[in-house]
Amino acid sequence: MTHKARRVVLVTEKLILDGVVRIIEANGATGYTVVDAGGKGSRNVRSVDHVSVVDAFTNVRIEVVTTPETAERIAEEVAATYFENYSGIVTLEDVEVLRLWKFHH
Amino acid sequence: MTHKARRVVLVTEKLILDGVVRIIEANGATGYTVVDAGGKGSRNVRSVDHVSVVDAFTNVRIEVVTTPETAERIAEEVAATYFENYSGIVTLEDVEVLRLWKFHH
Amino acid sequence: MTHKARRVVLVTEKLILDGVVRIIEANGATGYTVVDAGGKGSRNVRSVDHVSVVDAFTNVRIEVVTTPETAERIAEEVAATYFENYSGIVTLEDVEVLRLWKFHH
Repeated sequence: MTHKARRVVLVTEKLILDGVVRIIEANGATGYTVVDAGGKGSRNVRSVDHVSVVDAFTNVRIEVVTTPETAERIAEEVAATYFENYSGIVTLEDVEVLRLWKFHH
Repeated sequence: MTHKARRVVLVTEKLILDGVVRIIEANGATGYTVVDAGGKGSRNVRSVDHVSVVDAFTNVRIEVVTTPETAERIAEEVAATYFENYSGIVTLEDVEVLRLWKFHH
Repeated sequence: MTHKARRVVLVTEKLILDGVVRIIEANGATGYTVVDAGGKGSRNVRSVDHVSVVDAFTNVRIEVVTTPETAERIAEEVAATYFENYSGIVTLEDVEVLRLWKFHH
């Protein structure tokens, strides 16, 4: 009933969301999920005031569930394209998919 | 110290959140987490303007950590009930739980 | 190309975010991601009106990707410090990291 798939999670600066989305789509993934995120590990590293940066929410958490090959290509390409100049973290993990995104027209 | 559990992640249209929550609760899960989400793979498929749909955040990402049996029942029931007519993706994965939700009254 | 790592996901009350972040940093994790969350399993347990509590978003979902040892220490310490008095759930899972947070100064 379920299929093996792979989830890429990219947390990075909101500034580059458009470019990341272009890479996701160019690699043929049929869907992705974006969530506003705050935290540390970003360019504007905070030290004293936790709340202010968390509230700023200048990061995004982008999640793509796709085939293992596509997942790895997206991960590598986003890192190679952006992570010299922008902050981010990329993780990969196995998941089971009950149902992939279905498009309604 | 930790227990084996299973996480269901449902990303779908905000419109049906109430119904999804009813299914989660009817199956006996004791907690769930909801986050506003944008992205693609939804009915209002976007092509040119990435930012506008992402900003719209018309999706929700719902996460339930529970027993494997409950997780699978929730996944199947949400898909069967809603995914002929609404967009969504359902994934399942193994996690370890240190502590389940504790309720305060 | 990827490294084995462990993700801790903590969903708890926003009220204690600062304290949770202090524990994360004191254990040497170099980054974390925070997302606003709603749902059930929190102190203000809701029963009838799903929408209102979800909208309230009084919880946070905090995610840390780090070494297995650090992940477990963070999980245990947050639970021990806060979960007698605050609601929350802590999960641990294996992930592969392509690239850890890089700091820009």
